[in-house]
Amino acid sequence: MNKCGIFDSGIGGISVAKEILKTKLFDEIIYYGDTARVPYGNKNESTIIRYSLEALEFLKNFDINFLVVACNTASAVAVNELKKEAPFPVLGVIEAGVEALKNEDKNSNILLVGTKRTIKSNKYQNLLKNKGFQNITAIATPLFVPLVEEGLVEGEITDKIFDMYFKNIDKEKIDIVILGCTHYPFLTKTFEKHFKNAKLIHSGQAIVKMIKNNYNLKGKKDTKIRLFASDNPEELRNRAEEWLNVGG
Amino acid sequence: MNKCGIFDSGIGGISVAKEILKTKLFDEIIYYGDTARVPYGNKNESTIIRYSLEALEFLKNFDINFLVVACNTASAVAVNELKKEAPFPVLGVIEAGVEALKNEDKNSNILLVGTKRTIKSNKYQNLLKNKGFQNITAIATPLFVPLVEEGLVEGEITDKIFDMYFKNIDKEKIDIVILGCTHYPFLTKTFEKHFKNAKLIHSGQAIVKMIKNNYNLKGKKDTKIRLFASDNPEELRNRAEEWLNVGG
Repeated sequence: MNKCGIFDSGIGGISVAKEILKTKLFDEIIYYGDTARVPYGNKNESTIIRYSLEALEFLKNFDINFLVVACNTASAVAVNELKKEAPFPVLGVIEAGVEALKNEDKNSNILLVGTKRTIKSNKYQNLLKNKGFQNITAIATPLFVPLVEEGLVEGEITDKIFDMYFKNIDKEKIDIVILGCTHYPFLTKTFEKHFKNAKLIHSGQAIVKMIKNNYNLKGKKDTKIRLFASDNPEELRNRAEEWLNVGG
Repeated sequence: MNKCGIFDSGIGGISVAKEILKTKLFDEIIYYGDTARVPYGNKNESTIIRYSLEALEFLKNFDINFLVVACNTASAVAVNELKKEAPFPVLGVIEAGVEALKNEDKNSNILLVGTKRTIKSNKYQNLLKNKGFQNITAIATPLFVPLVEEGLVEGEITDKIFDMYFKNIDKEKIDIVILGCTHYPFLTKTFEKHFKNAKLIHSGQAIVKMIKNNYNLKGKKDTKIRLFASDNPEELRNRAEEWLNVGG
């Protein structure tokens, strides 16, 4: 039985669960969203590490043998601690996002967008530099999550907020945009409109690529998904039904 | 020794602390922001009640004899439970906001704005109806807190978001706007621009009025303020220094 645990600070990680579900590589996916304490983006590193270890303890109850950290903020600060504690592979969306670029030109102009905490952690930037990428612009875009939550994924207000955050960069010259937050794939159309020449890196797709490249998982399972949340589980289930077309 | 505890989910309640500080009625103010679990606006009632009771326990350690619940969401759902547990007066910003309207015309057109949870709780609306007000429009405006956090308190984006939230109401006919969230006073200029004929009700000013009208506190104390946060206390102190011109 292959069981994949997915941990996110909230419901955004459903976008990652969706991609993993499509692979049919697992018998079961156990999703845990820490909705009682979301968002992690503006919290302290030690607090995020503690919350992440609690999530691991919770998911261990389900005999998972694989853990995906779908929260970029937790991936930025807590993956090393999780790896120490977990007796199975732990994959973070940041490492996956960087690995997804391995065949790209090292001179590519990369734009990284994420929460304040993710950008400030420098984890993406350091990993990218270790891989030889040098042209990296990192911008924190804290209004994107509330925009997605309000359903404003395109339109005039969203365009103006994009213009504000990216006013100092030459958008046409950007080759790659790393969507460093699980909510951001919902803004795909607006990203494509503003960054016409760029390839977008989604966390969910990057994680799937990393799993396929590094682990010898086979088969076409009839994957079940179970959803848990530390608060408002009904909201998580509603969102999952809408996004995944599955029940809780 | 009169010691006033102030509890908020985050740092927004500093706007309430500022008004209480100005009264010089207390020897000491103890501010506790539950920044590790902010925001409360999208959490479950039972979770918010639990967090609020934990905040009360924390503040009791400082021998407070007065508690102000500066968080509108906690005021909406947890004030009754806090009153049962606290051996001293507990004042919520919602009751204060409603009491501030006691001399207003009962036919006034009232606009209430707040988080989804505050609006959905119907607490403001029910209290206003009990006082005889009938013309109440309530609108949840979840983008306002992130706007304030991003410093976008006026300008084109803020105007357009106001236009979006208030597109279905006749702004000129609004007599009173209740700012049902402690972050919203920072948007005062934009509210004044969009609601030219309206009186704005700020939580902090309403709480001060309620304290003065109901409790026989006297004197001009040299009020000290102590600040505590469940996460990132340095951010709370920085914000407090900026807003109050005091240290932590």
